[in-house]
Amino acid sequence: MKKSLLIILIIFWGTWVSAQDIAVRNFPAPETVSPEIQPLVTGKRMPFWNDHPKTAEQWKSWVNQIAQVTIEQLPHLRNQMQVEVEPAQFASVKGFIITPNHLLPENRSRILIHFHGGGYVLNPGEAGTDEAIMMAGFGQIKVISIDYRMPPDFPFPAAIDDAVTAYREILKTYPPEKIGVFGTSTGGGMTLALMLRAKAEGLPLPAAIVVGTPWTDMTKTGDSYFTHEGIDNVLVSYDGWLGDAAKLYANTYDLKNPLLSPVYGDVQGLPPTLLITGTRDLFLSNTVRMHLKLREAGVTADLLVFEGVSHAQYLMAVDSPETKQYFKQSNQFFKQYLAN
Amino acid sequence: MKKSLLIILIIFWGTWVSAQDIAVRNFPAPETVSPEIQPLVTGKRMPFWNDHPKTAEQWKSWVNQIAQVTIEQLPHLRNQMQVEVEPAQFASVKGFIITPNHLLPENRSRILIHFHGGGYVLNPGEAGTDEAIMMAGFGQIKVISIDYRMPPDFPFPAAIDDAVTAYREILKTYPPEKIGVFGTSTGGGMTLALMLRAKAEGLPLPAAIVVGTPWTDMTKTGDSYFTHEGIDNVLVSYDGWLGDAAKLYANTYDLKNPLLSPVYGDVQGLPPTLLITGTRDLFLSNTVRMHLKLREAGVTADLLVFEGVSHAQYLMAVDSPETKQYFKQSNQFFKQYLAN
Repeated sequence: MKKSLLIILIIFWGTWVSAQDIAVRNFPAPETVSPEIQPLVTGKRMPFWNDHPKTAEQWKSWVNQIAQVTIEQLPHLRNQMQVEVEPAQFASVKGFIITPNHLLPENRSRILIHFHGGGYVLNPGEAGTDEAIMMAGFGQIKVISIDYRMPPDFPFPAAIDDAVTAYREILKTYPPEKIGVFGTSTGGGMTLALMLRAKAEGLPLPAAIVVGTPWTDMTKTGDSYFTHEGIDNVLVSYDGWLGDAAKLYANTYDLKNPLLSPVYGDVQGLPPTLLITGTRDLFLSNTVRMHLKLREAGVTADLLVFEGVSHAQYLMAVDSPETKQYFKQSNQFFKQYLAN
Repeated sequence: MKKSLLIILIIFWGTWVSAQDIAVRNFPAPETVSPEIQPLVTGKRMPFWNDHPKTAEQWKSWVNQIAQVTIEQLPHLRNQMQVEVEPAQFASVKGFIITPNHLLPENRSRILIHFHGGGYVLNPGEAGTDEAIMMAGFGQIKVISIDYRMPPDFPFPAAIDDAVTAYREILKTYPPEKIGVFGTSTGGGMTLALMLRAKAEGLPLPAAIVVGTPWTDMTKTGDSYFTHEGIDNVLVSYDGWLGDAAKLYANTYDLKNPLLSPVYGDVQGLPPTLLITGTRDLFLSNTVRMHLKLREAGVTADLLVFEGVSHAQYLMAVDSPETKQYFKQSNQFFKQYLAN
């Protein structure tokens, strides 16, 4: 073989190998997801997945830019879901109260507490309310969404401190058996971390929790971080903004601290838990590792895996059967375990 | 670019593209599976995954060769699990009765019916008893394993005819509320198909079923047939022996007939069902599509997803925590729903 040719082949091979880790893998559009969610499943990767802000200022402007996109959609969503949203304060912690126009009679004295997702960096303020709006609207139940503090200004343990402070305050108004807690991604991880923290502080635990594709391991540990790298088109890879956000939030703390990575915690005594993920989810392992751990500890734990979807995609198409089913199953779960 | 170089690059590219579908994807050995099961997780692909027997004779000799490997391990397994196995007949259908040396008192009048896996072609006779032996041993419960007829000699509907004939016969000795049914892969698909068939014939249904990574869709439909192609090291791809076996068994019938692909059936009224899969499973979608369908139909349906494992691998390492957990969770599920 000619030398020049060999060199070109080596270069070509090199390109392929270095791109392989997160190479685009194209699959046929699955017939097994709804037409409403299919554009998301077959869509391009989240455009910002591989952004790497460096300075505090860069993080803030990056976060604000992404928040704007979400905030623009909120008036329409609130209208569609027929809910009112008002800012509120829970001791020192900011948040929002989301009240549906039509409250189910059985939900009159119940409350759900919501923690938004976004890797402990995204979705500040109103931008974190979209899932709470949908839960309140689909479930016809009142929701409090916590606007916990985030880095770069407020690294760990600020967020979980806020979570427990707000929970403690809400316990003054609502008995624990009428409280449910939920969240997705980081919000799911925080929901689990709050249970560990509340248990350690001797607080009564809520009646049930729903954790969607929870960030239970903030290190790159767990099989689907590798097997679904480049298959999940939402997060794509731990080595994008996500891993940077983990380090930014954890600051000097060990990422395996159970209040950061609840899969390493003692989960005995946790309330009934519903966990949700998707077959393409980068957090499939984060979800199923926690699910089996809960069951082994004797906790009532249910698992739903949505066909064909990447990280949290099941809740991203409000008119899809998948999104409706997620909120229906979550609300049924709360209904089953919350006192009325 | 020189013409010769271009041609070589095209050939190179062509090789890459054609191999891409089922390219070997190497991942770090997950720390999140047990050391006992890790050799399977990181092991080579099942050596026969891409075999394509053509004639009836070729199928038979291929099946016998694989069966020999299993049969050689059975004496040790029976000894380890402390069970006795004897051949038996259920009306016209052959099978085996597996009796543990120590029967739990609460299981004295209960029976589990087992359908083995193997794509409707593998594991004839004794070779189909290994899972039944482990269930009987770990659960200290009596198990009947059905040695249903298979192609090439007996295509659809022979297997499902045998299943319902045997079930009808067993109903003469055991009341349905003391019967559980289980199986893995094809055995899981058959368990579900038997429920549809029994319902259609007006037979009482058993108290509970456990279906491990069930073959609910015998067409190449479902996301993980594509996303986990080449990731699952047991089945590897639908386009190996598996797809051939589907066609061999279905014969002239439509592969979407619900007695072949139960995910297309009317599942209302099915008994409580536990479904199991793994994060690398080619049948992840086969499992979760059926799980959500069951829940939507109001059936009690629980799902377990084992971390890091390919198709049915969770039950392939008898000394691993994963395998013990699978049998423990299955037995707990039967215990919960079977009368004693």
